[in-house]
Amino acid sequence: MTFLNEIAQRYPEAISFAAGRPYEGFLDLDAVHRYLDTYRRHLDARTGGDQALVRRTLLQYGRTKGIIHELIAEYLLVDEGIVADPEHIVVTVGCQEALYLVLRALRRDAKDVLLAVAPTYVGAHGAARLADLPVLPVPDSPDGLSPADLAAAATAARSAGLRPRACYLIPDFANPTGVSLSAARRRELLRVAEEQDLLLLEDNPYGIFGDGRHVPTMKSLDDSDRVVYLGSFAKTGLAGARVGFAVAGQRVVRRDGSASSGTGHSTLSDELAKLKSMLTVNTSPLAQAVIGGKLLEHGCSLRAANVQETAVYQRNLHLVLDGLDRRFKTGAGATAAVSWNRPQGGFFILVDLPFTAGDAELESSARQFGVLWTPLHHFYADGLPRQRVRLSFSHLEPAEIDEGLDRFAAFVRAQDTTRNALRGRTHAT
Amino acid sequence: MTFLNEIAQRYPEAISFAAGRPYEGFLDLDAVHRYLDTYRRHLDARTGGDQALVRRTLLQYGRTKGIIHELIAEYLLVDEGIVADPEHIVVTVGCQEALYLVLRALRRDAKDVLLAVAPTYVGAHGAARLADLPVLPVPDSPDGLSPADLAAAATAARSAGLRPRACYLIPDFANPTGVSLSAARRRELLRVAEEQDLLLLEDNPYGIFGDGRHVPTMKSLDDSDRVVYLGSFAKTGLAGARVGFAVAGQRVVRRDGSASSGTGHSTLSDELAKLKSMLTVNTSPLAQAVIGGKLLEHGCSLRAANVQETAVYQRNLHLVLDGLDRRFKTGAGATAAVSWNRPQGGFFILVDLPFTAGDAELESSARQFGVLWTPLHHFYADGLPRQRVRLSFSHLEPAEIDEGLDRFAAFVRAQDTTRNALRGRTHAT
Repeated sequence: MTFLNEIAQRYPEAISFAAGRPYEGFLDLDAVHRYLDTYRRHLDARTGGDQALVRRTLLQYGRTKGIIHELIAEYLLVDEGIVADPEHIVVTVGCQEALYLVLRALRRDAKDVLLAVAPTYVGAHGAARLADLPVLPVPDSPDGLSPADLAAAATAARSAGLRPRACYLIPDFANPTGVSLSAARRRELLRVAEEQDLLLLEDNPYGIFGDGRHVPTMKSLDDSDRVVYLGSFAKTGLAGARVGFAVAGQRVVRRDGSASSGTGHSTLSDELAKLKSMLTVNTSPLAQAVIGGKLLEHGCSLRAANVQETAVYQRNLHLVLDGLDRRFKTGAGATAAVSWNRPQGGFFILVDLPFTAGDAELESSARQFGVLWTPLHHFYADGLPRQRVRLSFSHLEPAEIDEGLDRFAAFVRAQDTTRNALRGRTHAT
Repeated sequence: MTFLNEIAQRYPEAISFAAGRPYEGFLDLDAVHRYLDTYRRHLDARTGGDQALVRRTLLQYGRTKGIIHELIAEYLLVDEGIVADPEHIVVTVGCQEALYLVLRALRRDAKDVLLAVAPTYVGAHGAARLADLPVLPVPDSPDGLSPADLAAAATAARSAGLRPRACYLIPDFANPTGVSLSAARRRELLRVAEEQDLLLLEDNPYGIFGDGRHVPTMKSLDDSDRVVYLGSFAKTGLAGARVGFAVAGQRVVRRDGSASSGTGHSTLSDELAKLKSMLTVNTSPLAQAVIGGKLLEHGCSLRAANVQETAVYQRNLHLVLDGLDRRFKTGAGATAAVSWNRPQGGFFILVDLPFTAGDAELESSARQFGVLWTPLHHFYADGLPRQRVRLSFSHLEPAEIDEGLDRFAAFVRAQDTTRNALRGRTHAT
């Protein structure tokens, strides 16, 4: 994403539908102080007022798996219907570290591969590259990953002598597509995972930002321990804390081949903790305390904590959808050549264009029209240019969305005009 | 180190010369709030009072290389005589992440290897394992790594068809030996690094905790960019912030073979940032702000910030040295069979014993005598038992040191008696 960051820096006045960062209107540094104090009081109560222990817990090196695991387990139950043993939770430096740790733990030798919906979150490719785990793409669909495609991809990998270990996916308001999986499809995918002996890596950074219709998380439907749940507090807690987590209670078969059991049993979470001790030692307990305090102040419900934010994201989603309608579907500029999907929540919308929208087109869009968006090829390992872009709206104000869509429409029409002009010229020569 | 943590948990009443964690007597949660506010005021001034920008800097996703790089550059100049371009500094999740990132960046294929003083910090082996970079040991000496040994190890590796990329070392009060390198030896090692085309990874977590005689850091002597400096704030700043950094201004030769230069030039720090974006995205700006505030409150001098702590570590060092003298060198218990080194600072002392001191002996020591220490084999890749242990004294109070050394002496004498008894029995049979 270096190129995208450079473009954003070179055109600071451009309106950005590219950045996927959370809304900044409610950021509050005083709240950070309060969260810390709230968590301190919680520790006070938990330790019977042992101030030395409270200080040590917050300020010293700490437990590798983290200190807010019990609060996270409570939040998972309250918000997501997930029953998780706190010992199976590893608190990480953002979800990105959780993803890396899981992939590094799954990679034993050169035969191991990861399946991932294509297009998908750029960071999944990054973490896999760092872990030396090749990624095999599984085609996406307008309804999200299809069970048949997943089964076919796993079978094909095995036929090629590879060992597909897991499939990475974002079932709710996916990045970059905005698409969510139906409950029925989630259940079918769980069945395929069981049949194919795959783990499903369920990444859920945007799930709570929906319209109130709640589809159950895959982890809450998972009765055969096929799902490793990857959690992020970057959008729901505080991006600046850099706290995420993995829920990984899967039993681990030891190197001697015996399944682990009894008091000496080991789970994937234990493996992740071992790797984490070599990578970041432990997640800052101060950063965890900030998230812990926020959880405590809202009865461990991030849905409750994010009522305002969810309203903003929903408002922005509909401003973009309605704004696209007004500019491309009705009135003078109506054209069937531009279309888009209609997610029910999250941060992203996909727009199909009648021309290739790659980095060169983005550069023109920024320079000539003052608007940024994300070319879709960045979300594919093959890097081939596509006629599709991602519009992100999470951090924008209504006036920016309106002006930004005007600029986007002007860019699209200019591209289209150029293209037609070029085509005309080609015919003429 | 899992075994060592388990032992410590199983014998919570044991006095621990095993834990290398910083002293807890001055921990102060109110100071954390103050540091945050100090850093916020600094940002206020820097941004001309742009509150939205201040909030975004502290609470949003942030710069991959970090936000306190300029303060760190100032601290390196003030405390260590290191002139570092802030752009060459990457702020990391503790020094451990910095180490991993450097090793991962250095590993291109299976021929790449890391040289490391043996014995050395356990985390160096861990990070190397995670990065799939084999570690070749270079023997240590009572005066620390010898230039001849380094040259010999690099030459041997090359003869074996390997590519030694770097040597990891802790020049000041090393973990686990407590040994420091003389200035002359540092200069010779830099010369060998240049001759052998090696990087030196200078890890310096304890350097400021000396007796006032200051040997220059290798980075400050490095005029040919051979040293990657690895910094930790865990002991000098606050362990609970989990903030460290790397200084890596080395020019990077691009894949096309051209040396980078001009405006498009790339340094190792840029490579580290790319890897970090796939690993932890960025280091918590809140955690950085805590360290930044502490730096600001002490004129960017951690030596100034740690006057009290240094006095404690120096006091403890001499309590242990004098205590060992009283128990093993003079009086009724005097024996030449037990000896130890005399570091001038840091957290650690090495003790040589007349018997193998491995995990089994540690278990007896904990169970029967209520005292913990670290068997030295944990600091070697080969894991062979040794007749040597590390005593750490950083977090102890004087009364604990006194009682702990009584227990340690009792353990040593009992082992010695057992050994003699066994030897007698062996002779008798």
